Amino acid sequence: MANAEILYSVKAQRGDTLRCKGWKQETILRMLENNMENAEIPELLVIYGGNGKCARNWESYHAIVKSLKELEDNETLVIQSGMPVAIFKTHKLAPRVVMATTNIMKATWEVFYDLQDKNLTMFAQYTAAPWEYIGTQGVIQGTFETLSAIAIKRFDNDLSGKIYLTAGAGGMGGNQSWAMKMHGGVAIIVDADERVLQRRIEKNYLDMFVHSFDEARKIAEEHAAAKKPVSIGIVGNAADVYWEAYEKGFQPDIVSEMCPCHDPISYIPSGYTGEQADEYRARDRKAYLKDAQDTMIRQLRAMIAFSRKGAEVFEYGTSIRKECMDAGMPKEEAKQIPGFVAAYIRPLFCEGRGPFRWTCISGEASDLARLDDLALEICAGDPLVERWIKLARKHLPIEALPARICYMGFGQRKRFGLAVNDLIKKGEIKGPVAFSRDNLDSGSIVNPTFESEDMKDGGDLISDWPYLNGLLNASAGCDLIAIQANYSMGEAVHTGVTMIADGTEEADLRLEASLTVDSGIGVIRHAQAGYETAKDVANGKGKLTTDSI
Amino acid sequence: MANAEILYSVKAQRGDTLRCKGWKQETILRMLENNMENAEIPELLVIYGGNGKCARNWESYHAIVKSLKELEDNETLVIQSGMPVAIFKTHKLAPRVVMATTNIMKATWEVFYDLQDKNLTMFAQYTAAPWEYIGTQGVIQGTFETLSAIAIKRFDNDLSGKIYLTAGAGGMGGNQSWAMKMHGGVAIIVDADERVLQRRIEKNYLDMFVHSFDEARKIAEEHAAAKKPVSIGIVGNAADVYWEAYEKGFQPDIVSEMCPCHDPISYIPSGYTGEQADEYRARDRKAYLKDAQDTMIRQLRAMIAFSRKGAEVFEYGTSIRKECMDAGMPKEEAKQIPGFVAAYIRPLFCEGRGPFRWTCISGEASDLARLDDLALEICAGDPLVERWIKLARKHLPIEALPARICYMGFGQRKRFGLAVNDLIKKGEIKGPVAFSRDNLDSGSIVNPTFESEDMKDGGDLISDWPYLNGLLNASAGCDLIAIQANYSMGEAVHTGVTMIADGTEEADLRLEASLTVDSGIGVIRHAQAGYETAKDVANGKGKLTTDSI
Ligand SMILES: NC(=O)c1ccc[n+]([C@@H]2O[C@H](COP(=O)([O-])OP(=O)(O)OC[C@H]3O[C@@H](n4cnc5c(N)ncnc54)[C@H](O)[C@@H]3O)[C@@H](O)[C@H]2O)c1
Ligand SMILES: NC(=O)c1ccc[n+]([C@@H]2O[C@H](COP(=O)([O-])OP(=O)(O)OC[C@H]3O[C@@H](n4cnc5c(N)ncnc54)[C@H](O)[C@@H]3O)[C@@H](O)[C@H]2O)c1
Repeated sequence: MANAEILYSVKAQRGDTLRCKGWKQETILRMLENNMENAEIPELLVIYGGNGKCARNWESYHAIVKSLKELEDNETLVIQSGMPVAIFKTHKLAPRVVMATTNIMKATWEVFYDLQDKNLTMFAQYTAAPWEYIGTQGVIQGTFETLSAIAIKRFDNDLSGKIYLTAGAGGMGGNQSWAMKMHGGVAIIVDADERVLQRRIEKNYLDMFVHSFDEARKIAEEHAAAKKPVSIGIVGNAADVYWEAYEKGFQPDIVSEMCPCHDPISYIPSGYTGEQADEYRARDRKAYLKDAQDTMIRQLRAMIAFSRKGAEVFEYGTSIRKECMDAGMPKEEAKQIPGFVAAYIRPLFCEGRGPFRWTCISGEASDLARLDDLALEICAGDPLVERWIKLARKHLPIEALPARICYMGFGQRKRFGLAVNDLIKKGEIKGPVAFSRDNLDSGSIVNPTFESEDMKDGGDLISDWPYLNGLLNASAGCDLIAIQANYSMGEAVHTGVTMIADGTEEADLRLEASLTVDSGIGVIRHAQAGYETAKDVANGKGKLTTDSI
Repeated sequence: MANAEILYSVKAQRGDTLRCKGWKQETILRMLENNMENAEIPELLVIYGGNGKCARNWESYHAIVKSLKELEDNETLVIQSGMPVAIFKTHKLAPRVVMATTNIMKATWEVFYDLQDKNLTMFAQYTAAPWEYIGTQGVIQGTFETLSAIAIKRFDNDLSGKIYLTAGAGGMGGNQSWAMKMHGGVAIIVDADERVLQRRIEKNYLDMFVHSFDEARKIAEEHAAAKKPVSIGIVGNAADVYWEAYEKGFQPDIVSEMCPCHDPISYIPSGYTGEQADEYRARDRKAYLKDAQDTMIRQLRAMIAFSRKGAEVFEYGTSIRKECMDAGMPKEEAKQIPGFVAAYIRPLFCEGRGPFRWTCISGEASDLARLDDLALEICAGDPLVERWIKLARKHLPIEALPARICYMGFGQRKRFGLAVNDLIKKGEIKGPVAFSRDNLDSGSIVNPTFESEDMKDGGDLISDWPYLNGLLNASAGCDLIAIQANYSMGEAVHTGVTMIADGTEEADLRLEASLTVDSGIGVIRHAQAGYETAKDVANGKGKLTTDSI
């Protein structure tokens, strides 16, 4: 089928029309369609993150849709790097779909591209391949909770009047201004590409942008003094602007960046606009790379300088320290700023928390609203959930199928999942609900430069854990499970999952077990590493639940 | 528990005493004990293959035994690199044990040893960590079937009167002489360590050994002429003896070797006895390594020379070509001889065949005999199974719990498993039966220098397949599943499984599904790669079954 039909836009089916042989299959199909509805380049099957795809090619896409429509209640569909390869008879409580994506021995980008050219693999990204992408909300809460942890650590749990200096307003980075404003603070975000800042304004993620640091500083300091939230873009290169700010004695409270450092060929060298960089990159890749590395090193040095002057500075998952080390910066220098997981997020992991999310398969906003209420009921007294749900329902628009992300932890997820299934049974919401999560989770990933950096036991590289997560979820009746390699090639192993509430007794069984093991193995991983909170949670002495493992 | 009790010998429980809460758990416990009964260094928990262990340490061993005794019928025990870390409530059809072992990002031996010192990991080997080792039988059939494939390809399916020149009579290599004799042929096996050859004589794997090539040649040629099987050891270095033989115009029919080339520091350089090599290695590791590499290159060149003169020459899974390339030999030169999987075993993989095996948990030899009969009934007309079972029951001793290996394929395994479960139901055998397999299997492994070398689609490095195997087996109700890294560090990914027949209806369900998916995904992997036989099997047009996938 060399000329399989290309669909330039796909919308997720809404309502109560069942196209498959059961609601589990229908839910999974709608999650795939929802990925496509949120996709950055749907005609190329690219969902987000540069090259994260939902299917190998259009032939595979259509074959997947067909297979999901035909799949029986006791069968399992097998997907290898975006291509459906088999349907096996298993049993009713088995997963309906299993996947493995981008797993390659001795992976490098060259090896990957060669195998991709041979039509043998595709890039998973975190939530693209397993059909769990829900738009920009995911990363917003990540930034919001990171800033919350910083607020608690340094600023009496209050960021109003504080200034966050950052850079990179792209697909993921663009959320930073909003997250800081949700905290009532001031965000300055530097991007070398004016077109990108323009887009953020159009999408309401940014209030304004200017062309000079002095202008931005004036607006920022006025708003901070008046404790009024605002977000200001600066057209410029992060390295240049950060040093200018530093030399002029500017004192931001928090400094980070979300430039595409993990992929230096996308990072814009000093002296180039976005368009000029595109042209330079096409003309002389090697020279470009060298320039980009020099600029990146200058940028990191500016961040370290701010940190010495007392600002809270961290790497926000971009690999800037590793890339600078690869480009020659000494390790002791680069490691003067921490990664955000080790610094702020790991305590949440110890409680089994992470970017849990639910998607309303009916497509009804009223279902989402009812589930927001339910989350507040179930997690009453948990400040993290309470604060987030209230802000999120107020500020965040619905993107494609209504969905909510929420950093629930061990115990909460299971209680919430079962309560949702109950609501469906009673007809109080209109359709099934799919639970999933992304990579930044307690028990599903190993990435030694990110989620598992600086583990207390030195086990940053031990990758048994995501495989145990996958096997446990398959054992527990999770509906879709995906083992995948991610991040920069060969640098992370991650297991993606989708669990479905469809109002059946069967779903009670599946949800109880899978929502327990999924974050449970994360708690265990941290308890093994010696984190006391995690040991308490495993022993039933956590804040969120008295269940023990 | 720093001073957990060390057991210097463990015997697998026999008979019908149940120590656990169900026969599945008891079977798994006996498989662990059986590993230990077959172990090379039980007091160190080392089962075989140098450093392949069944538990992280003695504290973990005792905790595993205790956990298995307490494990309920709806719970799953989780083992991370030999240490039990959690028990989760799952459901009845879920696996009772899941494991992940030796999985390490960016693995090298240095990284591994560092993490092992920190008590964070252990080495899996293939069947050690998942408690599936059954002694030497496994590798014997591997060699037997390799020689069978050669017999069919080159010698009219008859090796009587043919001479196999090989080297390395160690733990695995020592089986070669027996396998060749089972074919009615003549084996010459060179080993630098006289102590090792002495041990083979004691264990009845070798008829005699001599100190000169001329002597061995005389005996070999006389027996070949008379079509009488014999096995002759030569004390000497493989490189030296092979060149001497070549220069004297000796014409063996088949040439290979099983020296420990994958670990050059164990390979003995020319001019040293086993004892002298031990001393040299301890004294000057670097000089030793250089000498060993030089000798290895000379050995491989001799093998290539024999191949040019028309002998059937192959690498038998020792990595000799890769090690010689790493030591400077050009790739075009090293690759003049093939690996045995690509040359002989892959056609079997396309039928879903591989080293399937069963272990009789009762400990009764009569159970094994009944199952040998059953295998002949179920696979009547399949020359491979018929020939092997008849020879194996005649020639192979029982080691620890009675077990049989047999290269059954897709369709056969399921039919056999269900028939075994039926025998147990009817009381015709005395206890449960555990099915498992080792690494050389159709659908469970990726190893680009071994099982997945030279795949037709160039996908040697794609490691999605073993993860899919693991997820599918977990979905299908397989009883124990283990995802592990193996072979030389970071070079292979493998999934080990144990499926249990205990005469219950539940076992019917589990066996039907798991014995289908396990080899089924192997057939699919080969069909995807473009092998016609595998496509036929997947479409129900194979020799062994009309089931399709
Ligand atoms: N912390 C997290 O949880 C998390 C989540 C997702 C992504 N990330 C990381 O964040 C980074 C950005 O991701 P993205 O999806 O937003 O990338 P993107 O490519 O969509 O956007 C990057 C932006 O940075 C700008 N830029 C590049 N070089 C610059 C420079 N020198 N100075 C100023 N601006 C520059 C580009 O113009 C672009 O707008 C990546 O490294 C990614 O891996 C982290
Ligand atoms: N093909 C397969 O399916 C398969 C299975 C298991 C092991 N292997 C491989 O086979 C090799 C041997 O495994 P093993 O467990 O038997 O190893 P081992 O260490 O138990 O035995 C190796 C033997 O080789 C001898 N030796 C070493 N250097 C020599 C030399 N230069 N000349 C002559 N003899 C020499 C040693 O004295 C020793 O007796 C390994 O590389 C292993 O990975 C292959």
